[in-house]
Order: sequence, then structure tokens, then C-alpha cells
Amino acid sequence: MAYLIKEDREARIDMSHGSGGRASAKLIDTLFLKHLGNEMLNRGDDCAAFEVGAGRLVMSTDSHVVSPLFFPGGDIGSLAVHGTVNDLAMAGARPLYLSAAFILEEGLPLRELEQIVISMASAAEAAGVRVICGDTKVVEQGKGDGVFITTTGVGVVPPGVMISGDRAQPGDVVLLSGSIGDHGIAILSKRAGLSFETEIESDSAALNALVAQMVQAVPQIHSLRDPTRGGLATTLNELARQSAVGIRLHEAAIPVKPQVAAACELLGLDPMYIANEGKLVAICAAEDAQPLLAVMRAHPLARDAAIIGEVCADPDARVQMQTRYGGARVVDWLAGEQLPRIC
Amino acid sequence: MAYLIKEDREARIDMSHGSGGRASAKLIDTLFLKHLGNEMLNRGDDCAAFEVGAGRLVMSTDSHVVSPLFFPGGDIGSLAVHGTVNDLAMAGARPLYLSAAFILEEGLPLRELEQIVISMASAAEAAGVRVICGDTKVVEQGKGDGVFITTTGVGVVPPGVMISGDRAQPGDVVLLSGSIGDHGIAILSKRAGLSFETEIESDSAALNALVAQMVQAVPQIHSLRDPTRGGLATTLNELARQSAVGIRLHEAAIPVKPQVAAACELLGLDPMYIANEGKLVAICAAEDAQPLLAVMRAHPLARDAAIIGEVCADPDARVQMQTRYGGARVVDWLAGEQLPRIC
Repeated sequence: MAYLIKEDREARIDMSHGSGGRASAKLIDTLFLKHLGNEMLNRGDDCAAFEVGAGRLVMSTDSHVVSPLFFPGGDIGSLAVHGTVNDLAMAGARPLYLSAAFILEEGLPLRELEQIVISMASAAEAAGVRVICGDTKVVEQGKGDGVFITTTGVGVVPPGVMISGDRAQPGDVVLLSGSIGDHGIAILSKRAGLSFETEIESDSAALNALVAQMVQAVPQIHSLRDPTRGGLATTLNELARQSAVGIRLHEAAIPVKPQVAAACELLGLDPMYIANEGKLVAICAAEDAQPLLAVMRAHPLARDAAIIGEVCADPDARVQMQTRYGGARVVDWLAGEQLPRIC
Repeated sequence: MAYLIKEDREARIDMSHGSGGRASAKLIDTLFLKHLGNEMLNRGDDCAAFEVGAGRLVMSTDSHVVSPLFFPGGDIGSLAVHGTVNDLAMAGARPLYLSAAFILEEGLPLRELEQIVISMASAAEAAGVRVICGDTKVVEQGKGDGVFITTTGVGVVPPGVMISGDRAQPGDVVLLSGSIGDHGIAILSKRAGLSFETEIESDSAALNALVAQMVQAVPQIHSLRDPTRGGLATTLNELARQSAVGIRLHEAAIPVKPQVAAACELLGLDPMYIANEGKLVAICAAEDAQPLLAVMRAHPLARDAAIIGEVCADPDARVQMQTRYGGARVVDWLAGEQLPRIC
């Protein structure tokens, strides 16, 4: 990790960094190319070229506006890489390339921006993707909030893989890769200045390597999705609606870390609606569930994977939960806003 | 054009529209899908799949933070489509697909957002591209500015075409597709509440159809670039630096509309540094210049195309201008910020 030259340590973003002129060029050279550079990005054209074989590509985009910019377990830079890599992985795809567009607020310390860019570079390297094009804009102080990062990714889907949210069928099994609520509670604790006995860290992580192993073992997986904003409850409702099926969950099977459960109780929040950034839901045929679970548990990012429910016929596409105490309740979409600017 | 249902006409964006829950889903259904919908976007997955043949693809991204959101000749929606379509076209590519990521400020009137989305839809249709995936985030009032839009595009380069900013050679000819400064002056006039005898309109336009004809006639074009932020002066400096050559310009050959020239004089601005959003610079071998100029002049977006200079050997990669009065001066990069948030 090589940092900015010493005299720039106190420098801040000003409007000239967004001019497209000399200051923009210097920012690109001394910061973006320095850390993210590769032969495609370095070329300096307004777009990047890459060769592909014939096949099925996927594309996904996400703007990241998380506040605060730095939080336990990550920052907006790593999150911006993981978010888009994971959206591509949820189609069973191998992520290849990312673009990164920055909207900077005047006054942002350059050393914070550099820390974020270094974090992006290391997340991209770990996930095996390259940032091949980018953009930088600057807005006046009070018209932005530090930095917003929009990443867009392109990936390639292995032949024979056809994963989509509309493919869940009655009789299918619902798997979850691990404990829920970690990311949202980590952000909220940092924001509110809360401290718990055990620090709660975001689960922000790139899931593409896990998915690659899952797809290799069970190429016929029906649906994959990462339960980010809106949490597990909303993600399952989306899948139920897309596939026009119902989903029955077993509350006791859904992993929640004790410190996350305690924080939720304290704050009056339901972990089912809290965002995750390193978890996935998988839906597959009943006979594929055990092999898939075994592959998941063998991967460090899904050691606590569990079968949490099953798909049933329901024209109203409801998600229902069998509670710990034997009762049943409907798990609705998130209504309103539980935690703003979580990602 | 079908607008929001009547009771929503006074509605505004609130934080729940960024929750990922029910309000987000409603916004996507009733506004984004309504106007931008196609079978890929409608699918509702977090990423969009598309088939490609083997070949060379290009990718480009731009965040748009223009202020004001609406200006003579366009708005942030059409600009966000044109900006990315043009970056792809500058590689000689045929733009195929766009992603669109919105960062909305709490309090934005929904009818303004709808107007912007309708404008995007119509710009995308005119340019022959489809918006296939998207994202929406909401930030608190005072943490954004109405709406920021990041578009990312993917396009395919015809076989045999190899256009890049590093291919200009001494002896090459520099062509410009039309008058400079229109976009920047249109924005500035609107922002400052200035009115001129003739309204100055932004030149914002998709250049891909023009480029397709240019590439068909002269596939061996060396470099193309659209002189956006930083204006023609900065774009030519970028190209000179990338190719390690000098450029000599003839001031009298560079078209500037009389009302733009007058506004620049009044405001103390140099049109060479003012942003354009519907113009391009082309660099080609001397023997290709006349055929290329003829093709350009035959297209409605380049009727005023002109040969404005030539490439020369210069290890310092300077851009020099032969003035109207026979003198010569160096045309430097834009320093500082002439016009913030122009795109």
C-alpha cells in the first residue's frame, strides 16, 4: 500500500477535480490509476475494450451511498465491489469486469478517498475482477455526502446454467448461507455510536467463489439472491412474487448471531428485515438440497448454511413463518424504511 | 406519454423509496418499468442477461450531476443516455445496452423524476439502445441534489475497427463535427437566469448513428473523442498526450455560433474550454480526410463539420493554435474549474 505523497496528505477534493481538466487528470493518475490500474484502465480512452467468446453475459449496476463511509468489517469501497460482484454471481455468472463512477463532495479529504480506492482495489483483486473504466464528478459541499460510488459489472454465465428469481417451484427447498443481520447492525451500531460487548462486523464479502462451487456441484440451481436492502424477508417476498409461489420458513432454522439478536431486541428491530452483504439464498429441487448444503458448508463464507424452508403453491405468493413456538405468521415485505443508507 | 396517476402528482421521494421494500418495488413498477420496460428489465432479477457473439466489446460509465436538471435542449435524463452512448460510439462501437443507477434526494417531486425517466426512455429509443438493469438509492434532503444518474453502457466493435486515443500520427488530419460551446453556454445561461436574443440550446445528442456511417466509410479512422468536460481544448490535449504527438489548430476553421461567441465574450469565457454533448473530434490519415468530411457533412448532426488542424511531431505533446490574425499560441489543458456540474 503506497500512499499519497506527503504534501498531499491534508489535501481535499475541490471543484477543479471534477472539471475534466488538469486537476481531474492528476487525480486519475495519482490516485485511481495508481491503485486500480491495469492495461485496460491505463489506456486512458473513455471506454474500455475486452474480448469475449460467444455466450450469455450478465450486467448489473448498484449505486452505493452507505453512511458512514467506514464501518466495522468494511467501507464504501469494498462494499461497492462486493455489491456488484454478488449481483452477477446471483445469476450463476463469473464476474469479469467492473466500472466505477465516483460522485465526490467538495471538501472530502483525499486521504479518505485514497483509503476507499485502496480498499476497492483489494476487494476487486480478491474477487478476481478488474476495474476497467471509471468516471469522477465533484459536487459542491452540501450537495453530496463524502462519496457515492456506482459500480457496474459484466460477467459470463457458464453454459447450461439458467438461474433466475422466477424459477422457484412448489416442492423446492430454500437454503440460506449463514447468519442474518450482521451488515445492517454493524452500520447502525457505528452510526449510533453504540458499543456491544462483542463488536458486530459487517459480513460484506464477495460470494462469487462460493457460487462457482455451488454451480459446479448443482448446475441446475433454480434461484439465487443476496438478501441486501430489505433483508431476508423482502428478498424471499421478491422471489415468491417473481415465481408466483409461496414460501414456508422455519424460524428456528434461520441463523442469527447472539450479539445481533441482542442488538435487534434492544433497538426494536427484526433481523429478518436487516440488510446483509455477504449472504445468499438458494432455491433448488428437493433432491439437490443436501448435496448443495454440503458444498456450501465446506466453503468458509457459508459454514453456517442451513435449510430454512420450502416452496409451496400459493397464488397470493405469501411468505409464511412457522415460529419457534409452533405458531405461524405472514412475513411481509419491508414497509417504510427501517434503516436508511445501509448500502 | 402516460403520466403518474392523478393522486400521485404531488408526491415526492421519501426515504422509504430507497428501502428495497414495498415502496421501492412500487416506484420501480409504476415509474421505471412503465417507461423504460423491456423483457430484460421487466424480469426483475438483480442482473440482466444478454447473448453476444464472439468479438470485441466495449464498456463505459459516466455519472451525471448536471445542475439544473432541466435546461434548453435537454435534461439530465437525455444527457445520461447521450453521454454514455457517445463514449461507446467513440470506440467505433455499436451501443447495445445501458444500466441506469439513480441517487435520489428526499423531497424530489415524483413528477420531475417521471419527466426525466420519460426523457431517458425516448433518448434510448432514438439511439437504439435498451436500459436492461438499474438501481435506486435515496439520500436525505441536503445530502444530494435532486437526482444523480450513473449510466454504464456495453457495445460491440465491428471487426477491423481499432479506434483509440493513442493512434494519432504526425501528418494526420483533425476534424470537428460542428460548432463548440453550445451545451456549456446553454447550462450557464439557464443557471444564471441570463437570456439572449436567440435562446442557446444544448447540443446534447446521440452520435452513434453518425459514427456508424463514418466507420463504414473510413473504418481505419485513428481516433474519435467527444469534447465534453474541459471542452475542445482539453480533449485535444488528452489525445496529444495519449498519442505523444502535437496538434496544430486553425482558429478560423473552428465553428462557433455567433450567439455562443457573444455569450462567451460577455462572460469572459473561452469557447475552447466549454463542454459539448453532441460533437466529436475525429483524427484520420490525410488521404481519408476529405471522404470522411463528406460523410460527416451529409449527416444532420455534423452539417457544419470542418477540418480544424493537423497532427505534428512534438515530444512535448503541445496543442497550438494559429490565430485569426496570423499569430500562434499554446492551447493548454483546462486549469481550475471553468463551469462546475456541466454534465
